[in-house]
Amino acid sequence: MIERYLEDFEAGQTFRSRRIHIDVDRIKSFAAEFDPQPFHLDESAAIDSIFRGLAASGWHTAAITMRLLVEGDLKPAGGILGAGFDEFRWPRPVRPGDELRVESEVLEVRVSKSRPDQGVIKVRTTTLNQNNEPVQVLVGNLIVPRRPASS
Amino acid sequence: MIERYLEDFEAGQTFRSRRIHIDVDRIKSFAAEFDPQPFHLDESAAIDSIFRGLAASGWHTAAITMRLLVEGDLKPAGGILGAGFDEFRWPRPVRPGDELRVESEVLEVRVSKSRPDQGVIKVRTTTLNQNNEPVQVLVGNLIVPRRPASS
Repeated sequence: MIERYLEDFEAGQTFRSRRIHIDVDRIKSFAAEFDPQPFHLDESAAIDSIFRGLAASGWHTAAITMRLLVEGDLKPAGGILGAGFDEFRWPRPVRPGDELRVESEVLEVRVSKSRPDQGVIKVRTTTLNQNNEPVQVLVGNLIVPRRPASS
Repeated sequence: MIERYLEDFEAGQTFRSRRIHIDVDRIKSFAAEFDPQPFHLDESAAIDSIFRGLAASGWHTAAITMRLLVEGDLKPAGGILGAGFDEFRWPRPVRPGDELRVESEVLEVRVSKSRPDQGVIKVRTTTLNQNNEPVQVLVGNLIVPRRPASS
């Protein structure tokens, strides 16, 4: 497995993921455990909601996005460690049967002033459906170690 | 069930939740599905990680926070609908056996200019462990309908 150190990242790099199918039963079971609101649980209740039909919890979309990121080629050494977010929104609902994938772009790379052995990369991760419409936009700051002197 | 319209919210209001116990097996099974990184999956691998021990995925913490919010007294009419976040961070890890709860404070209430039938409330939701230490801070903007003229 390739692992990337801070020195391996630069602004403008992009990374993509595989696609993942969004299953109606998992939308409902995720919602039952974590976001039990009618528009995430029941098709007929959802019709009269702001979503005009069953929609996945945004937290389900966020969790699936993380899965796709972890599996993808970004691969910071030490793992994907979020130090906070600059932007996080869900521009449109995720529906049963959607096929989601992520595209990430490195926006900025900087060495930590307080911790010279590590740095932070700012990454925009856009989650897209099968029509290439964004369903989630996340701009996060990830902690990445610098390459050890010996390696 | 009480449902609150935009007119029922004002800056300074606070809301609390019950506590929820964080189970080690659910930490691992959530991570296996959504965030399969060693420090969320395996105690011994986690010891050498930045977390110095098994820690819940931040997305698991976020999902549990949503559960506590949905069950709590905030209760906007039409549901808890996030229109985006101003701040989102995980200041410390969530450990197996932690007891989490949330405290929310309304920071701002404003009527929508483009949609006079609704507005937005800005809410800071802090997720705390059993030692009252924040494990997640989330400042979100929620869409809330105005009270219909007839009610």
